[in-house]
Amino acid sequence: MKILDLPIVTPSVERATEYAVRYVDSLLPLVKEDPRMIVVMRATATKQNIDAVQLRLAEHQLKGHLVYGEERTIIGVVGASIPPTLREELERFDGVQEAVRITRPYKLTAREFQPKDTVVDVRGVKVGGNACVVIAGPCAVESEEQIMTTALAAREAGASMLRGGAFKPRSSPYTFRGMGEDALKLLAQARDATGLPVVTEVMTPTDVELVARYADLLQIGARNMQNYQLLEEVGRTGMPVLLKRGLSATIEEWLLSAEYVVAQGNPNVILCERGIRTFETATRNTMDLNAVALAKRRSHLPVIADPSHGTGKWYLVPPLALAALGAGADGLIMEIHPDPDRAKSDGGQSLTLENFAALMPRLAGQARLLGRSIV
Amino acid sequence: MKILDLPIVTPSVERATEYAVRYVDSLLPLVKEDPRMIVVMRATATKQNIDAVQLRLAEHQLKGHLVYGEERTIIGVVGASIPPTLREELERFDGVQEAVRITRPYKLTAREFQPKDTVVDVRGVKVGGNACVVIAGPCAVESEEQIMTTALAAREAGASMLRGGAFKPRSSPYTFRGMGEDALKLLAQARDATGLPVVTEVMTPTDVELVARYADLLQIGARNMQNYQLLEEVGRTGMPVLLKRGLSATIEEWLLSAEYVVAQGNPNVILCERGIRTFETATRNTMDLNAVALAKRRSHLPVIADPSHGTGKWYLVPPLALAALGAGADGLIMEIHPDPDRAKSDGGQSLTLENFAALMPRLAGQARLLGRSIV
Amino acid sequence: MKILDLPIVTPSVERATEYAVRYVDSLLPLVKEDPRMIVVMRATATKQNIDAVQLRLAEHQLKGHLVYGEERTIIGVVGASIPPTLREELERFDGVQEAVRITRPYKLTAREFQPKDTVVDVRGVKVGGNACVVIAGPCAVESEEQIMTTALAAREAGASMLRGGAFKPRSSPYTFRGMGEDALKLLAQARDATGLPVVTEVMTPTDVELVARYADLLQIGARNMQNYQLLEEVGRTGMPVLLKRGLSATIEEWLLSAEYVVAQGNPNVILCERGIRTFETATRNTMDLNAVALAKRRSHLPVIADPSHGTGKWYLVPPLALAALGAGADGLIMEIHPDPDRAKSDGGQSLTLENFAALMPRLAGQARLLGRSIV
Amino acid sequence: MKILDLPIVTPSVERATEYAVRYVDSLLPLVKEDPRMIVVMRATATKQNIDAVQLRLAEHQLKGHLVYGEERTIIGVVGASIPPTLREELERFDGVQEAVRITRPYKLTAREFQPKDTVVDVRGVKVGGNACVVIAGPCAVESEEQIMTTALAAREAGASMLRGGAFKPRSSPYTFRGMGEDALKLLAQARDATGLPVVTEVMTPTDVELVARYADLLQIGARNMQNYQLLEEVGRTGMPVLLKRGLSATIEEWLLSAEYVVAQGNPNVILCERGIRTFETATRNTMDLNAVALAKRRSHLPVIADPSHGTGKWYLVPPLALAALGAGADGLIMEIHPDPDRAKSDGGQSLTLENFAALMPRLAGQARLLGRSIV
Repeated sequence: MKILDLPIVTPSVERATEYAVRYVDSLLPLVKEDPRMIVVMRATATKQNIDAVQLRLAEHQLKGHLVYGEERTIIGVVGASIPPTLREELERFDGVQEAVRITRPYKLTAREFQPKDTVVDVRGVKVGGNACVVIAGPCAVESEEQIMTTALAAREAGASMLRGGAFKPRSSPYTFRGMGEDALKLLAQARDATGLPVVTEVMTPTDVELVARYADLLQIGARNMQNYQLLEEVGRTGMPVLLKRGLSATIEEWLLSAEYVVAQGNPNVILCERGIRTFETATRNTMDLNAVALAKRRSHLPVIADPSHGTGKWYLVPPLALAALGAGADGLIMEIHPDPDRAKSDGGQSLTLENFAALMPRLAGQARLLGRSIV
Repeated sequence: MKILDLPIVTPSVERATEYAVRYVDSLLPLVKEDPRMIVVMRATATKQNIDAVQLRLAEHQLKGHLVYGEERTIIGVVGASIPPTLREELERFDGVQEAVRITRPYKLTAREFQPKDTVVDVRGVKVGGNACVVIAGPCAVESEEQIMTTALAAREAGASMLRGGAFKPRSSPYTFRGMGEDALKLLAQARDATGLPVVTEVMTPTDVELVARYADLLQIGARNMQNYQLLEEVGRTGMPVLLKRGLSATIEEWLLSAEYVVAQGNPNVILCERGIRTFETATRNTMDLNAVALAKRRSHLPVIADPSHGTGKWYLVPPLALAALGAGADGLIMEIHPDPDRAKSDGGQSLTLENFAALMPRLAGQARLLGRSIV
Repeated sequence: MKILDLPIVTPSVERATEYAVRYVDSLLPLVKEDPRMIVVMRATATKQNIDAVQLRLAEHQLKGHLVYGEERTIIGVVGASIPPTLREELERFDGVQEAVRITRPYKLTAREFQPKDTVVDVRGVKVGGNACVVIAGPCAVESEEQIMTTALAAREAGASMLRGGAFKPRSSPYTFRGMGEDALKLLAQARDATGLPVVTEVMTPTDVELVARYADLLQIGARNMQNYQLLEEVGRTGMPVLLKRGLSATIEEWLLSAEYVVAQGNPNVILCERGIRTFETATRNTMDLNAVALAKRRSHLPVIADPSHGTGKWYLVPPLALAALGAGADGLIMEIHPDPDRAKSDGGQSLTLENFAALMPRLAGQARLLGRSIV
Repeated sequence: MKILDLPIVTPSVERATEYAVRYVDSLLPLVKEDPRMIVVMRATATKQNIDAVQLRLAEHQLKGHLVYGEERTIIGVVGASIPPTLREELERFDGVQEAVRITRPYKLTAREFQPKDTVVDVRGVKVGGNACVVIAGPCAVESEEQIMTTALAAREAGASMLRGGAFKPRSSPYTFRGMGEDALKLLAQARDATGLPVVTEVMTPTDVELVARYADLLQIGARNMQNYQLLEEVGRTGMPVLLKRGLSATIEEWLLSAEYVVAQGNPNVILCERGIRTFETATRNTMDLNAVALAKRRSHLPVIADPSHGTGKWYLVPPLALAALGAGADGLIMEIHPDPDRAKSDGGQSLTLENFAALMPRLAGQARLLGRSIV
């Protein structure tokens, strides 16, 4: 374990972490406990030096997990809380090269900060608890008939929330950009008729107040993941926020964007993986289910997945929806449409209402297998 | 549906395909039937023109699915076989702009070519049938004790095949590169003791004869996915081949590489998704489960997944293993090691034998949920 | 040239374009004339059929460039303007399969729409003409002393514009986010002292009026390239806009974002390539100079390059600055700082004032070599 | 400069390096001297502690460049050679937290190992010295007439070497794969007629002897960059090797592959950047000129660029060729063809002979501007 001999590339530090954590692992699939500190022993450290460190850790109700490298030993420290002075304390021990706090640039959203899963309440629907949420609806609200038909079918099939775009971000200025407030009113009407809470995207800070008047869950789209004024504005509402991962955002950047919302005193953030941009063009995006599992581990926030945008092909939605739950997602958001071929946007990735109804029992079975349920 | 007005960007053709196929869809999650031809009607085509085409299709035991675009109508033709002269025939019809066969650059590996799933027999273990295969073992064979311990534990836990590297491709010339033929002998010994067929990588054409003498399944590693001489050489053996997807290979390139093997008269190819290289560095690779579902749809070859390389982190292996089965994978290949911290390579992504044993019942449950079993 | 036999993948259409355009090429390095239409002949077309098409094209003052494929011939049509009825006209000719207009989803920003280079006037500094512009300044305005020292040194060395961040988008909410309006005032003060026009980023629609009061060129940052409300808001000001390419934006998406601005009646858009996100981590981003050359060809808008963000390493800025001019960039924007080690952001990619002064004569030499000058 | 407080992400170490190196920088555009060691002072270190370290460095004929961070000071150590015991020695000093050698995983190819540029002699043509090499020729040898015409035109225009494929790696087994040994004979004949040394690709270890009999420079293609047996085999010939960067290879992996060749006692490696695979599809690959400049800095090996594959479009070759020289490339390799439209492969990216002849004076001018010449 040559930590200090490889200054340029130091994945070895994270490896040390992973190695150490293995021994405290007794539960699959997700281990919730990362080491809080690593203690790097000098190459010349003796067994007595190591034992002395272990003893001191035990006095603090901490456990030290040893990782033996070729050159030196590293101790991964696990436990409920690290005293602020521990580093200084340990660095005075014989044989200790250095002690390093494991911290991440995000804080409020980090699992180290809050080990317990956050559960976000969206008008009575709990997201992030034992039950998995299923959000369904059209890409865009197009008409009263379309949204009402879809909403009723979604509820009938067992969905727990309704999605529908009122303001649509579009690459080209010449394509359909949503019905705006009229769509918001139709969404509210659909909610009244079905009881399903409503999620819709808000694209700019000045629209937040308007959208918040109608919606139950404010969606920040992938293109706006780093629109910081918007993040702070939705943060200030205190309302639940659905934060989609940017097309080329790292997991760390995604959590940092969540941090912007939470830093406004609004802990109600739901993360949503929706595919990243890679070299592969056979699918619209590349669904990154590693990110679902890793975000669940690194953060206490709920994480859901969007297999519609993640694949861009309606026939890949069912297998990837099952896969996302398998990877640990707390729910799904999917595009459905009464007549996808005539949809004004994203028809190619929308399930028909019949397909969706046929898929729901499969999702329920998958949730049960994981000891969960569908909300 | 402006096919002909958007000559530069024509995803619309594939969209047309997808749209059309929707109507023939009655089974979830995978639809096996793509249209075999699309007929583009002129903008001026009348309903009579369209009906005439439909009638002719019916005479050939084919079905035409209409896709109405803004400018023109497109007919997706579905059915068992397209007469070679159909294109010419239809292009003589009034109102027909053109008729286009849907073909892909790969042929022998395409589902259009062979609708039925290929089942590869690896010394009695069937891959690609109803049962899912689980292949487990260390990254590299390191010693008799290591491989025997691992093989016995793998069989005990329910694995159906043993993996282990004898020749290791390594980015740096200064790292451990495998035990070579000694490792092959140990793998054969482990097979004798456990009955588990053995898979190991072959890196260069001149080694094929040697590796084939010991192994039951020849692995082509990601770095060699486009080593065409090697592909042809393993093709000529007639033995089962495990073809890993290259780090930055598209799904189409992957299938074309399989085509190299099959073109030698060797249909026994198992595809393996093992993560692609993207901008994300929090995981070693980005597991592309879209590719698993799409390769299953486009090809009749079995597809398995490698969540060890796909994530690079042992603690992400269990959730991604479940996810891969959910996405439709025909099996899994995973790294396990009696003492990952002392592994000569890839320790950070190897499960302990205990973790693996704990994971297997979860995988079996997942397979059952999908109406499958673990081999 | 099998255009119609490869319906799924049709790069061949674009190839046809490129092939055809070769013959009209007499100028290096940039050919300004793409074909406006391609005429696909039937496989059975005779030489007489082709000659007849050529004749008709000549009657319209158009030229047809023949591309012979294995199966059929394609005619690339080049010339000043295509009559709206030409397609219909040609499709009635014997031997013509189809005629296809070459159009792109962006219009106002396309070179087809306006062949002549747009020149943007930023308070007297012309961008996009024969002279190359050099914009220099710190990542962020930090103090009066810092910005004044930098501005004077920039002018002294020959820069033609001053950059400086007042509002900084930052991944983390816990890092320095700029001095806001105080910075704007300091920038205006620096302009008054040096005569250099000022460019600074505006991050949200409600800030546009404020920033526009002080700045001469409004910068849209990479994270906001698809913030459409912001694009329209800066479009409405009529002021010059510097549009950075998004981290994972395609060239087409970038031009479509420019289209949002121009569609507001504001033609004063300067495009800026600043590196894209790829798998390579040795540099902060991957400078895409292909994009500079291609954007110049496809659009009439000026294109500049930002080697500071494009590389993330100050010592790579000089070679990449020369390279960008070689690729056809209309100018450069670079970060310079009196004391990069103490810079509040991006110090690692900032040149010292001395380095910048040493670089400028090299840039002037490069510009002269290309028959241009530094503004 | 929080090095030790950010254990997970430590770009800060490399930043420290860059910061330190700035002060020793007096030459643009490339700084050849990186620090060999960094000394991290404790947060509590005094000025006296730092001075004592500086004094000791001076005694070893080394220089220490101070980087002041918020929390602590870091010393970048620059000089000819670091005594093996220096680390231990300095770590005993008061106020020193740790001393870290800057090493890279590649050794023989690293500039630290050999500061002087390697010059590779290819049958009398020097690559890597002051003159820039221009290699031109068709993608594949197709006929005697084609290669002779091309070779004569290439020499006439001023090229210094001839390229031409005999064995072609092709994604599909159904496309033209080269003329094999017949092509090698034609290349040798073209060399005899023109005096131009010949470069051609070798794809598999068993072909090395054959190809080496005819070629002067052995090309390892992008797909084979990590074909380690092949690398070692060409290493053993002692002949000059042209090592193309893999489609998704990092710069570090590229240098490690060169290390495989050099480790066989063959220092005659020329690196070649030829574009990487990214999300952008408007160009065939994304030319990474950052990599050219960085590889020149990190390694002593010559680096050339291939704008034909790097762009995939013949009309982007001229601007990117100029750009590559500007970025510091030691030469170019370009595809030219007497009749690109009828080329059996890669016609779309080949210059005509006329275009090439028109480009050469531009390249010569660019080389002169940089104080170099064209060979």
